[in-house]
Amino acid sequence: MTPEQARKAFRDGTVSPTSGWAPGYTQANLIAVPRDWAYDLLLFAQRNRQPCPILDVTDPGVTSTPLAPDADLRTDLPSYRVWENGELVCELRDATRLWRSDLVAFLLGCSFTFEHALAAAGIPLRHVQQGRNVSMYITDRDCRPAGRMRGPLVVSMRPIPADMVELASRISSRMPDVHGAPVHVGDPGGLGIKDLSTPDFGDAVEAEPGDVPVYWACGVTPQAALMTSCPPFAITHSPGHMFITDVPDETYRIA
Amino acid sequence: MTPEQARKAFRDGTVSPTSGWAPGYTQANLIAVPRDWAYDLLLFAQRNRQPCPILDVTDPGVTSTPLAPDADLRTDLPSYRVWENGELVCELRDATRLWRSDLVAFLLGCSFTFEHALAAAGIPLRHVQQGRNVSMYITDRDCRPAGRMRGPLVVSMRPIPADMVELASRISSRMPDVHGAPVHVGDPGGLGIKDLSTPDFGDAVEAEPGDVPVYWACGVTPQAALMTSCPPFAITHSPGHMFITDVPDETYRIA
Repeated sequence: MTPEQARKAFRDGTVSPTSGWAPGYTQANLIAVPRDWAYDLLLFAQRNRQPCPILDVTDPGVTSTPLAPDADLRTDLPSYRVWENGELVCELRDATRLWRSDLVAFLLGCSFTFEHALAAAGIPLRHVQQGRNVSMYITDRDCRPAGRMRGPLVVSMRPIPADMVELASRISSRMPDVHGAPVHVGDPGGLGIKDLSTPDFGDAVEAEPGDVPVYWACGVTPQAALMTSCPPFAITHSPGHMFITDVPDETYRIA
Repeated sequence: MTPEQARKAFRDGTVSPTSGWAPGYTQANLIAVPRDWAYDLLLFAQRNRQPCPILDVTDPGVTSTPLAPDADLRTDLPSYRVWENGELVCELRDATRLWRSDLVAFLLGCSFTFEHALAAAGIPLRHVQQGRNVSMYITDRDCRPAGRMRGPLVVSMRPIPADMVELASRISSRMPDVHGAPVHVGDPGGLGIKDLSTPDFGDAVEAEPGDVPVYWACGVTPQAALMTSCPPFAITHSPGHMFITDVPDETYRIA
């Protein structure tokens, strides 16, 4: 399946998480905010590049992107969330009716990209083996604020065999536009996480004997910042229901 | 000499290009624009990351940066340029009197950082051997515009022995925050450069037999964009007279 075929399926009404769709092509987080908030979000993303790596930012009202020139950002994701004053007000399949002419769309890198690279190197992904979503946690680290945007760092956690942690770190460090190197390894208390079995987002994932928890900055961080910062209006993708671009994953890997 | 000692010398009145000062510490380009233009410049930098890699952006009126917490951006560079409507109006040693409370300061990565890494790998730097400034050229490639900001890509060129071009590419590609991999190798016509012996900025540099010209995106690009885009007011560093940060070069190298 090509990215174009995947986007057409979503445009035609298919609702599905995008993990495994159009493999080898970069998927992106979407956050669209009014122009009045765009500087704050752009600066927030710049100051917190590990959780918020920017792949593209549109001009106000523009609903296309060089990342996939034929795509329409209002219709080509499988599911959208609409936010008012930091609260989720609805989820829908087509955002055309609610898209505003002053919206600036941010497309941010997604860890699906480095997961492909980890798997290709033989590193087991426990959440995939267990058919679950990755575990995500709100940490006690604050992102560096920017204007009205502020919020905590959110991390995803993957249990990795101890003798593969260095390899996983090195592979992901060479993909800085999709969260880059881990932010922490080992003791969850180092990030203020009380209990790995009760993640704040996603599913609990079981570690195998000899696994070590490895934590990466997570693309849910900007959604957590929306909830904390309460812009009057925003449209995002629904978690796991990403925008599929035409850009090969390899583009974001440093040789 | 530490970065702090270098900055004190400049604050006390020393005017000197900063090449070779506080070796091993990252130097940065400075561009400060009014808040009204900051979104356009931030988006321009984001859309043109190779020539404009952002290391930090201040809040309006703030004259310090986490890159060097004790520094004052108005006094601690050896020389400043003041711009009005895209024209250079003066050069001065201390920008305190002209600094405005609405100025947002951008600190951008500088190729001095990857030059240290090239030299450490045994790659000869002809301009250094010849005691000259690096050659810089305005290309026929336009940067991707952002709001009112637009301008051509400017590149620096270094003659590199043919059998070391791959090594130079790989080393610099692992430093994406200081311009990253070359944008072009070989024929200057591929970038619309008519004559390598007449650079638009810096000095002509002589190639040795067997050298190939290698072109990197250059931090002069945003100054060229100032000249093209004509914001009402801006303060920048003088070419070669950079801001010396407390951040080790290694911070920007991907292992």
